[in-house]
Amino acid sequence: MGADPRFFPARGPISLAAIATAAGARLTGDGAREFLDVAPLALAGPGEVAFHEGRRNTAALRQTRAGAVLVAPSAEAEVPDGCVALVCDAPQLAYTRVAALFHPRPVPVPGIHPTAWVAPDARIGEGTQIGAFAFVGPAAEVGAGCILGAHASIGAGCVLGAGSIVHAHASMAHCIAGARVVLHQGARIGNEGFGFVTTPMGEHVTVPQIGRVILGDGVEVGANSCVDRGAGGDTVLGPGTRLDNLVQIGHNVKTGRGCVIVAQVGIAGSTELEDYVVVAAQAGLTGHIRVGAKSRIGAQSGVMNDVPPGTDVVGSPAWPARETLKAFAWLRRQVAAKGNDRTGGTP
Amino acid sequence: MGADPRFFPARGPISLAAIATAAGARLTGDGAREFLDVAPLALAGPGEVAFHEGRRNTAALRQTRAGAVLVAPSAEAEVPDGCVALVCDAPQLAYTRVAALFHPRPVPVPGIHPTAWVAPDARIGEGTQIGAFAFVGPAAEVGAGCILGAHASIGAGCVLGAGSIVHAHASMAHCIAGARVVLHQGARIGNEGFGFVTTPMGEHVTVPQIGRVILGDGVEVGANSCVDRGAGGDTVLGPGTRLDNLVQIGHNVKTGRGCVIVAQVGIAGSTELEDYVVVAAQAGLTGHIRVGAKSRIGAQSGVMNDVPPGTDVVGSPAWPARETLKAFAWLRRQVAAKGNDRTGGTP
Amino acid sequence: MGADPRFFPARGPISLAAIATAAGARLTGDGAREFLDVAPLALAGPGEVAFHEGRRNTAALRQTRAGAVLVAPSAEAEVPDGCVALVCDAPQLAYTRVAALFHPRPVPVPGIHPTAWVAPDARIGEGTQIGAFAFVGPAAEVGAGCILGAHASIGAGCVLGAGSIVHAHASMAHCIAGARVVLHQGARIGNEGFGFVTTPMGEHVTVPQIGRVILGDGVEVGANSCVDRGAGGDTVLGPGTRLDNLVQIGHNVKTGRGCVIVAQVGIAGSTELEDYVVVAAQAGLTGHIRVGAKSRIGAQSGVMNDVPPGTDVVGSPAWPARETLKAFAWLRRQVAAKGNDRTGGTP
Repeated sequence: MGADPRFFPARGPISLAAIATAAGARLTGDGAREFLDVAPLALAGPGEVAFHEGRRNTAALRQTRAGAVLVAPSAEAEVPDGCVALVCDAPQLAYTRVAALFHPRPVPVPGIHPTAWVAPDARIGEGTQIGAFAFVGPAAEVGAGCILGAHASIGAGCVLGAGSIVHAHASMAHCIAGARVVLHQGARIGNEGFGFVTTPMGEHVTVPQIGRVILGDGVEVGANSCVDRGAGGDTVLGPGTRLDNLVQIGHNVKTGRGCVIVAQVGIAGSTELEDYVVVAAQAGLTGHIRVGAKSRIGAQSGVMNDVPPGTDVVGSPAWPARETLKAFAWLRRQVAAKGNDRTGGTP
Repeated sequence: MGADPRFFPARGPISLAAIATAAGARLTGDGAREFLDVAPLALAGPGEVAFHEGRRNTAALRQTRAGAVLVAPSAEAEVPDGCVALVCDAPQLAYTRVAALFHPRPVPVPGIHPTAWVAPDARIGEGTQIGAFAFVGPAAEVGAGCILGAHASIGAGCVLGAGSIVHAHASMAHCIAGARVVLHQGARIGNEGFGFVTTPMGEHVTVPQIGRVILGDGVEVGANSCVDRGAGGDTVLGPGTRLDNLVQIGHNVKTGRGCVIVAQVGIAGSTELEDYVVVAAQAGLTGHIRVGAKSRIGAQSGVMNDVPPGTDVVGSPAWPARETLKAFAWLRRQVAAKGNDRTGGTP
Repeated sequence: MGADPRFFPARGPISLAAIATAAGARLTGDGAREFLDVAPLALAGPGEVAFHEGRRNTAALRQTRAGAVLVAPSAEAEVPDGCVALVCDAPQLAYTRVAALFHPRPVPVPGIHPTAWVAPDARIGEGTQIGAFAFVGPAAEVGAGCILGAHASIGAGCVLGAGSIVHAHASMAHCIAGARVVLHQGARIGNEGFGFVTTPMGEHVTVPQIGRVILGDGVEVGANSCVDRGAGGDTVLGPGTRLDNLVQIGHNVKTGRGCVIVAQVGIAGSTELEDYVVVAAQAGLTGHIRVGAKSRIGAQSGVMNDVPPGTDVVGSPAWPARETLKAFAWLRRQVAAKGNDRTGGTP
């Protein structure tokens, strides 16, 4: 079963030869044979192309009804009879290219919806599509070839680079965004940071938050995620950084290139992530710390100190991953052995 | 004190007899006596009906000024003089029925607000109400008797079943929804999943996300919660499943019937919940696991493995609830006994 | 480097004398010297005013190129030559006042945007600004001098006090809000609480949620945060309470004056916070508990019981902070000493 044509009409049929070329895969079988779509291994039929990667799904591979499958050399022998094996080194990466043949990135339909509102002094690039009830504020600049979904809001003075997509209900303010940026539904960019001073009488006085948000080329911000603007100076997401849904980014946070921030993570003010840091779901990072390049923060971790480059940490408070896992295993053994001893675990 | 009539005008007066019938309660006293509204036990006055359930609130029951109270047989003796006892087996359930007498589910006022925009080829069912600035995209279908709030957005091709409510600012895309579905304010359905492959050069390449979201009959999605569409194949919330606010549902997650997902929970991609699973607040479930029917996941748990049916787990990493609680109690005793011993807890 | 004039045009130049007066600082140097803006210590140039507070940033103070700096008496000696020291007791609080000289709170531009929709029977106060696609429902009241951003939604019957700001895409329903309330982008007020009763057949029956949300004067609600209305009776945020982004407030929660709820915190139904409670990021509070005045809940804590006034707790489950930190340190020592002993830690 391919994609639902109501949402994702497939651009097929496409020949096996073209598919193999896109995938960078070794072609076996009839290059002229035509395929209609891609589909998951377990759901694909004879007119569809699937992929297999990882040890987990070998059973699904053996039983697939797909017409062709992208596989690593090590799994080629498991491809069932009647299914074409497209052998390549990185099947999932190859799949992204084949899937994009059938389902290319949405192309803007140039024009401004009659219900949208664009400020007279805003600048809109060529070929850009502006959806229903979208708002483009005074002096804002939207680059060429962008798509603004229904109810999207580009605040006064904002800059959005070419080829960007702002999905339905996403909003940005006080933001300079690069090319090919994607804001998913309900993303909130440029909020006032949570900055205030409390007087001795207990009154909270707002510190004027007069910085910006800078989004590098290719940054993606997930649905209903929030990125606060700098208090003074900027909040910066480096090129290619991706945020999943419901993520919180505090004021003056900085990330390097290609960081990956999974759903419901929170990063407090002024913390800096170097390049290619991965923060797994629901982790929290306190403010004013630095996480070294390529470090990985485990899910639900609570990070309260700097993390050296290339380090895996986990737990709350976060320790090096190996140590935390050891601690929990040890604790579990203690309790298994002695849980009924109400005097505690020592003789 | 009943409900604020600016928001919830009560459909009273209603006779005690009618109230007792709706509640399935044993009627004592004058069936013709009239009541004006329901109210909480501690705030109700003589013209109002309250309920009592659980041991916690016995003091409030003894002191209530309510005119009538729904109570279990075991608490009947605590009802103060002058207050009518409406004795029934499940007082809170009975209360939902009595409250619905005074405050029935909102009924759509059929029509399309002059500021709304409905695509020419969209189909709108009879008796449906479409609010200000609501958007219904091309080829979308909205069933009969629905309510779309202000700024609601129904994306191209979506299907919304009869009797559904989409509250203000909620949006759906790539979604097929059953009857009596409720999306609360700012809910985001059908977001692109967080699926990408990272090249050896560190570039993140999006895997086309070409699946859908399927919402069963009676599904409710809380305010600002997010449900990503399938990567290939569908994300599915089974009939009667309820999500609280700020919940994250990853691509290809599947839930059975009547699951309950409390606020700020995150469920990663491809994880499956069987029927009637309860996930308490802020818990996280990793991807590609299976949680058996009627299992209960404790608040803030981190679940990294399959959970057998009917199991309670808690903790991060999650263990069986009894074991985790024992471990923490044991740890606490250790520290209480030996916390000052810097050499550690063993001789 | 001062603020980006596209977003935050500075109201300068302002004389050093005026700056010192606003700051309540001791003036040294030429009172007629003019400054152009405020800026962070590390980025400020000779025309700008910065501040220094805390031991952490002494190096930045020594190296600053700012023209003037607000400092505590204890740090005056570290101010470099050529930089004017503005000595005061609370430099950050003084900074908020100086920054507000250059960047005063946004002033409404009175009027209703041509694309907005205001119900005929809604009342709008003098001097209020209503933005593009904003919605003000039937019988709603918006006070004087308010700002409603693009796509803001004020539901039927709501009351919003004078001087309030509802940022883009925020929405309120069933809410009575005081003066100077701020709702940040995408905040959701007045959602139906997560209240239902499950029948023996597994069906979830909604308990009609017929209470309100009451927001005291000066309450702020962060981006994409959610505040559910009461089930019966009200959800109340006391005067001056501030919520950061992505916070969840359940039905019938009550906070006192000046509480601070940091990002991604969840507070379950009917829990009460007395005055000036601080709840750090990602903590969770179960329902029906009471947290005493000035207590502080640590980040990621899970609070399951009442907390006495003035108490710091941390951990999940939350214990007194000192005890939890001791427990984790002890556990870590155990494992460091004995982690390789697979038989467990006791002889």
